[in-house]
Amino acid sequence: MTDAVGKAPDRLWGGGYAEATHPLVQKLNASVGYDQALAYDDIVGSIAHATMLRDQGILPAADHAAIVAGLRTVWADIQAGRFGWSVAREDVHMNIEAALRDRIGEPAGRLHTARSRNDQVAVDERLWLRRTLAQMAGYIARLASVLAETARAHAHWPMPGYTHLQRAQPVTVGHLLLAHAEAQLRDAGRVLDCLERLNVSPLGSGALAGTTLPIDRDKTASLLGFSGTTRNSLDAVADRDHLVEAMAAAALGAVHLSRIGEELCLFASAEFGFVRLPDAFTTGSSLMPQKKNPDMAELLRGKSGRVIGDLVTLLVALKGLPLAYNKDMQEDKEPLFDALQTWGDCLQVTADMLAAAQWQKKALLAALDKGFLLATDLADELVRAAMPFRTAHEKVAALVAELVAQNTTFGKLGAARVAEKLGVDKAVVAGAIDVRKALRRRDMAGAPHPGRVSREAAAMAKRAAKVSARAHAWLAPCAAERVLAGELGG
Amino acid sequence: MTDAVGKAPDRLWGGGYAEATHPLVQKLNASVGYDQALAYDDIVGSIAHATMLRDQGILPAADHAAIVAGLRTVWADIQAGRFGWSVAREDVHMNIEAALRDRIGEPAGRLHTARSRNDQVAVDERLWLRRTLAQMAGYIARLASVLAETARAHAHWPMPGYTHLQRAQPVTVGHLLLAHAEAQLRDAGRVLDCLERLNVSPLGSGALAGTTLPIDRDKTASLLGFSGTTRNSLDAVADRDHLVEAMAAAALGAVHLSRIGEELCLFASAEFGFVRLPDAFTTGSSLMPQKKNPDMAELLRGKSGRVIGDLVTLLVALKGLPLAYNKDMQEDKEPLFDALQTWGDCLQVTADMLAAAQWQKKALLAALDKGFLLATDLADELVRAAMPFRTAHEKVAALVAELVAQNTTFGKLGAARVAEKLGVDKAVVAGAIDVRKALRRRDMAGAPHPGRVSREAAAMAKRAAKVSARAHAWLAPCAAERVLAGELGG
Amino acid sequence: MTDAVGKAPDRLWGGGYAEATHPLVQKLNASVGYDQALAYDDIVGSIAHATMLRDQGILPAADHAAIVAGLRTVWADIQAGRFGWSVAREDVHMNIEAALRDRIGEPAGRLHTARSRNDQVAVDERLWLRRTLAQMAGYIARLASVLAETARAHAHWPMPGYTHLQRAQPVTVGHLLLAHAEAQLRDAGRVLDCLERLNVSPLGSGALAGTTLPIDRDKTASLLGFSGTTRNSLDAVADRDHLVEAMAAAALGAVHLSRIGEELCLFASAEFGFVRLPDAFTTGSSLMPQKKNPDMAELLRGKSGRVIGDLVTLLVALKGLPLAYNKDMQEDKEPLFDALQTWGDCLQVTADMLAAAQWQKKALLAALDKGFLLATDLADELVRAAMPFRTAHEKVAALVAELVAQNTTFGKLGAARVAEKLGVDKAVVAGAIDVRKALRRRDMAGAPHPGRVSREAAAMAKRAAKVSARAHAWLAPCAAERVLAGELGG
Amino acid sequence: MTDAVGKAPDRLWGGGYAEATHPLVQKLNASVGYDQALAYDDIVGSIAHATMLRDQGILPAADHAAIVAGLRTVWADIQAGRFGWSVAREDVHMNIEAALRDRIGEPAGRLHTARSRNDQVAVDERLWLRRTLAQMAGYIARLASVLAETARAHAHWPMPGYTHLQRAQPVTVGHLLLAHAEAQLRDAGRVLDCLERLNVSPLGSGALAGTTLPIDRDKTASLLGFSGTTRNSLDAVADRDHLVEAMAAAALGAVHLSRIGEELCLFASAEFGFVRLPDAFTTGSSLMPQKKNPDMAELLRGKSGRVIGDLVTLLVALKGLPLAYNKDMQEDKEPLFDALQTWGDCLQVTADMLAAAQWQKKALLAALDKGFLLATDLADELVRAAMPFRTAHEKVAALVAELVAQNTTFGKLGAARVAEKLGVDKAVVAGAIDVRKALRRRDMAGAPHPGRVSREAAAMAKRAAKVSARAHAWLAPCAAERVLAGELGG
Repeated sequence: MTDAVGKAPDRLWGGGYAEATHPLVQKLNASVGYDQALAYDDIVGSIAHATMLRDQGILPAADHAAIVAGLRTVWADIQAGRFGWSVAREDVHMNIEAALRDRIGEPAGRLHTARSRNDQVAVDERLWLRRTLAQMAGYIARLASVLAETARAHAHWPMPGYTHLQRAQPVTVGHLLLAHAEAQLRDAGRVLDCLERLNVSPLGSGALAGTTLPIDRDKTASLLGFSGTTRNSLDAVADRDHLVEAMAAAALGAVHLSRIGEELCLFASAEFGFVRLPDAFTTGSSLMPQKKNPDMAELLRGKSGRVIGDLVTLLVALKGLPLAYNKDMQEDKEPLFDALQTWGDCLQVTADMLAAAQWQKKALLAALDKGFLLATDLADELVRAAMPFRTAHEKVAALVAELVAQNTTFGKLGAARVAEKLGVDKAVVAGAIDVRKALRRRDMAGAPHPGRVSREAAAMAKRAAKVSARAHAWLAPCAAERVLAGELGG
Repeated sequence: MTDAVGKAPDRLWGGGYAEATHPLVQKLNASVGYDQALAYDDIVGSIAHATMLRDQGILPAADHAAIVAGLRTVWADIQAGRFGWSVAREDVHMNIEAALRDRIGEPAGRLHTARSRNDQVAVDERLWLRRTLAQMAGYIARLASVLAETARAHAHWPMPGYTHLQRAQPVTVGHLLLAHAEAQLRDAGRVLDCLERLNVSPLGSGALAGTTLPIDRDKTASLLGFSGTTRNSLDAVADRDHLVEAMAAAALGAVHLSRIGEELCLFASAEFGFVRLPDAFTTGSSLMPQKKNPDMAELLRGKSGRVIGDLVTLLVALKGLPLAYNKDMQEDKEPLFDALQTWGDCLQVTADMLAAAQWQKKALLAALDKGFLLATDLADELVRAAMPFRTAHEKVAALVAELVAQNTTFGKLGAARVAEKLGVDKAVVAGAIDVRKALRRRDMAGAPHPGRVSREAAAMAKRAAKVSARAHAWLAPCAAERVLAGELGG
Repeated sequence: MTDAVGKAPDRLWGGGYAEATHPLVQKLNASVGYDQALAYDDIVGSIAHATMLRDQGILPAADHAAIVAGLRTVWADIQAGRFGWSVAREDVHMNIEAALRDRIGEPAGRLHTARSRNDQVAVDERLWLRRTLAQMAGYIARLASVLAETARAHAHWPMPGYTHLQRAQPVTVGHLLLAHAEAQLRDAGRVLDCLERLNVSPLGSGALAGTTLPIDRDKTASLLGFSGTTRNSLDAVADRDHLVEAMAAAALGAVHLSRIGEELCLFASAEFGFVRLPDAFTTGSSLMPQKKNPDMAELLRGKSGRVIGDLVTLLVALKGLPLAYNKDMQEDKEPLFDALQTWGDCLQVTADMLAAAQWQKKALLAALDKGFLLATDLADELVRAAMPFRTAHEKVAALVAELVAQNTTFGKLGAARVAEKLGVDKAVVAGAIDVRKALRRRDMAGAPHPGRVSREAAAMAKRAAKVSARAHAWLAPCAAERVLAGELGG
Repeated sequence: MTDAVGKAPDRLWGGGYAEATHPLVQKLNASVGYDQALAYDDIVGSIAHATMLRDQGILPAADHAAIVAGLRTVWADIQAGRFGWSVAREDVHMNIEAALRDRIGEPAGRLHTARSRNDQVAVDERLWLRRTLAQMAGYIARLASVLAETARAHAHWPMPGYTHLQRAQPVTVGHLLLAHAEAQLRDAGRVLDCLERLNVSPLGSGALAGTTLPIDRDKTASLLGFSGTTRNSLDAVADRDHLVEAMAAAALGAVHLSRIGEELCLFASAEFGFVRLPDAFTTGSSLMPQKKNPDMAELLRGKSGRVIGDLVTLLVALKGLPLAYNKDMQEDKEPLFDALQTWGDCLQVTADMLAAAQWQKKALLAALDKGFLLATDLADELVRAAMPFRTAHEKVAALVAELVAQNTTFGKLGAARVAEKLGVDKAVVAGAIDVRKALRRRDMAGAPHPGRVSREAAAMAKRAAKVSARAHAWLAPCAAERVLAGELGG
């Protein structure tokens, strides 16, 4: 910030005002500290608006040219970090417009013709969210691709599958990784749906009731890469649905990562010992020289809190607001930025951490030895021999209770004795209590049969690549962006 | 409930258990008090599963017939309210299976073959959510249709448009109503997207790792009207994404209704007097004989709290859970049921209340007289005369401040004097400060031009009808439902 | 409910109403389905109000006697489960008043003199919350007492202490249990503070502006055991602070229990094996015969979600409401009841489960062997020998890294070799790496020195007893309760 | 930040580490961007710790002197804004310690003796929260005092009191303002309770299990102004209760302010016109020259969302964490800082805005004329004449309905005709329907009787002053702060 909060104001709406603004008011009103993040989108939106105004004969061509040239220098300064943001100029929109006026003089005053800050911020937020969600889709695709690749490499590695954090039935490391990949692809689906829904232009809605000037809304929409225009001006400036939708997707996405985080914390503990996280993803203790703490995995878990909190923040802010724009809606930006930034960081760190994690085959196999992970398989064998499932279940459960009391296992007792106790054939038992056979017996869609896991991993890699392609398509620059970049004339 | 909490248990998994369950444990474990809501879906799912087991040769045809017949009588009893739910039998699944065993004996014990409560509850929830979301889409369509109809009837009724609850620019009642309809259609879009995403069958995922029995997952999926099957067994039983997605849509939907509620509270106040709510939608006071309180409008606002709270409940419950199933996930049902029930009730009451609300033309017109709703139009006129917008804005703002200080208005001062003060032509001013002309000047997409509002209302009616049609398509009974209804053989 | 939702209404405020109430309106308005929970408090409040009215000469003594006698029979019926609740009579207040009218006729119509539903519900909620919070304090005291007793019995049992779920330094089981007890006592402190703050009578505040009748607010306050009266009538009917405060305490309390729940899930896993939960607190699997799932521990974790969600629900409902009463505030009861019910259940089940949990000494000791839990102690010894802490830390950390690479431990390497590598005396090392000595060296307030843990356990038992005594004091019946019970005349 | 995120690390715990930290890991781990806010508290805590170490003979006196002198220069640099914060040094603690080492060399390495980052951050947060909550109590006291003063000046100004946003009964402006003051004093009560509860020293708890070095915990507690020490080392480093408690108080406080904000938005609207907000508290529109938007009142409403969201963030982050410290807990700071900063800003702006608001007597009186605000008073008069309240209520309600249908009021109809219709004496009616008399008839504790409101305003001023005095007492510097300030020797 280049000026103090309490400084004489430089407001663009001060015409009817006799009194100076209260200092704390200026601080609370000013959003430039965070809505700078919209600078690029604001400039792109202004270029589209100015171009349309020119094409409609509302803005002289010379003024248009001055505006475009001026905005390019403003953006160059912002990019270079040498733009002087001013709190007195309240927000990103006023800062940029005032800077433009400083540079090109009177024509800058014509840029806001037929536009209000209400439709301006609405379009900026949609542009920002569009490119940010596209980035998210890209990060998700990368994580899914890392999961696919790691799953492929560990498709055949048996490990205990858990329910209630109790060893339940055998799965493979690849199968577990692909479970997380499925959740990621659903996250991607929500992001892509939200992108479709938000991609309409609110420009031309004015403050709340459109404008009396002869603008062309389709033109700006097209210059900005929107697929159409919003259909109601009151709604267009009051609507923050796409933000809520994106943040809800982020909250669920963060919860997904928190589940990965929890598993990594468990698996990296001395007690499980299933995975080793490389030093790059752990940190030490200021006091305990031996510690290698899985900080990143913990943060994956903890940071879900802030994304959920951000979602709550926006829902509460919107609750009970009459139409159209209310100042409360300024509170939409910080939680939006924080939620998506957090999600994006977590997606990236998860991908890198999982790519680097070293699964510990010995510990995984040791864990399979204990427990009674194949008790269900035994019951299934009894069912194959025509026993009703409930009876088979009770019979095996009673045997397990007996063995636990004797501190022994199926393996230690031996297939012959187990078979005898259950009154079935020894070969049946021997087949049922062998982990690798048990995995291969699960030869059906979605099951941890190692060959199937391998094929699912390959399929997942392709599905992730499709998401990646769609993310890239959304990131293609629109005409107004190309004008800003100098690739197109104004 | 037909038995006390502390009664001797009737558990179906007690084979390995020596001790009785603790009474409070039984109470907390038992979900039958609320998951009864899944009874229909549980029975439909069981019919599909049994049919597939028979077709695969796992279940004898006679047993299948007995199971289907038995389930039909169970459902008949539940529908008639004469089914004896038992807390000791924990949940809806165990209650129904035990009742089936009471009726048909041993074959009931074969129904759970190749199925776990984990994939069973997963399929039940998807079936429940599918039909409930379809209902929601129907309610939304109806509300949008009421809004369209009412908007059509009030397309030409001018009223003040507000920003910051300050009179800003003129709109029409129809325009305001259509703004709310736009939000409803976005809500419908989210519901329909969620329906597509959730419509895959988890059956066959077992407890977490599939099954060793030769089942046909595609068959059950098809009998249940699913478009496919889930692709990972761990994910299939751990996934509650569709619930979160539906509840996030509900939370945003409830916030939309809270905004309508707030407007109705304002508009029904003595101070605004814009709308009269019929007695059927208001209540009296136990103390103040004159009161007609807009309770329903207030509840629209207040009930958004519980839907947001429900969403938070589920997100928190899921946070940090390792795969696959954990008991914490039992906590998904009450918030889900409550959120969608609340949303559905609110949608219906909003539609009925808005259909019955009487807009008060006189009060609306009176409100337009005061304020300076056409100041922007005046500024636009100066712009047309080539003044930069910022200069025009300052000029008009200064004039408004002067008139406020003199306690007068554009109307009272007269077009001639206003024109003189601004240095423009009197005709220009006269045109600018006439509300009906001002509305007609806003002849662009999304603006409150009365003719356009009329056409948008008609378009909205069609868009609502399309949503309604899609909702109905989702409600068409699947094969297993038709078996239950006796329309198809087992 | 004894009548259908849509039945002809039986409203007590229908004087000015021409139209029937809309069926859905009645459903949404009716709170009797849940506010029945306030029946006892409503009757107690009415007895106090009627008694004051009589003493002030507003209510004839005979009417007062009839009202008290009538309310006693109403309460007897409610307690016996034979009271016919009616949805048409909306809420608990109207149900009870109408039932009273059915029984004693006209005098019932005088009971509502100088009272509004607004101050009536306000007083009912305070009475309910007072006795419920007192119960919570009692449950907390019991849990703290169980923790104290169990801590005493395990004061000397070494176990690994964790940070980041990594073994960090040795503590004892008793020390860990007392950590949770500290959190419980803070919860009790918040509950007791809330009790003090809420214990003022809102009766006499009327609908919002008091009454013109000559009532005696101190009298009703005293009959109801309040320590004073509220000081502003608008605030008295608009205030739900005590609910929020209680629910915030519940939310934090539930989070505390979720942390215990997580530890029990971990410790009961095959990988940790630190604790065995008796069958009474676990459940089996419908599919896997060998499972003993720690459902209660999982629910302790999961149910924190709903308490947090309940808190959010109420905060959102209250957000942005103008004074005084608004219908939105009806939404306060369900989350309140749910939050405290849930917290109470969880507190009780935690106490019983911890009392029954069997700690596994062998597994705990085995876990201490591995890891480098005494690395800090070694560094401390270097510090004692005048090395700066940071240098000592680096030196020990480097040694640990070396030993990890060689897959050995301090113990296996032996004190002599360790001493040599660090350049210190062997005796120093030998002392530092013995767990029991290490615990005894921590002879300071709050540390896991076994003798201190023992003494802290004894102190905790006394502190818990004090909380229990305060809880009981709050549960002593007030004069109006004693009238209802027949212990005092009217 | 003086160095880039990806720069070679400067970690203080790197002894056992072979690999460099991953850049994104460093970014996510680094908290110095926000925990700088703890710099003062960190230095104060270090001074206390160093002094105790010296007194216990653990730290040479010369080293202690160097440390204190060094920390004074560090603080001077931080205050002057010339301290070079480094992301590579992760957090405020490491930054300060490393800076100290840069300045005084080896003795800096001795400062962390017998201390861990875990108990260090715990003490820092308590010190920060203690002074911040004391500030909050001061802001609340000021707001309550402004409300008292404004209430005194408007004690006799009648205005409509509302329920359901419907005019209900007459109150006075002073009475309404005092209602809000009551809520503020309850907020203060919660803040002061939290201050008492948090004021114990965790120092000496080490990482989780205390220390083996002979420290004196009471000494550091006393130097830091704590009333005692925490009693369990695991709890001391795992406990964030005071943060949750403070943020819950902030969330409710923010909701209170949102209610004031909503009322100001309503009252400042053209429709109500009850209050004029000075220009200093409103802003203009970029498009509509006539607008004076009550932005601050809207933000009071909107900002409640972020404080609620912050509370949710922390509760979610803590949910399900095993003891003791986990990295997730780093996520406590940003929401804490944001919640209290927001609350503090809002408290201050509310006080200033209310002090400057101009109540519009004419509009208030005009609003009283319409409606039937005295219908209850009429019913009360019938009760005085021995009619049961319910009968009186119905009679008056029927009359009101009749008058509404005829578009007339009690006033227009005249006391005589009203009396006739109700069958009572004309004088009774005349008295009942005069607003000023009606207010004076409410001569009871808490009611809007103008004289009583006046006296309550005076009492409120005194109560606010007491809160202010307590706030100031909490702000008195402790011994370690006085050492830092140079008022005491080290």
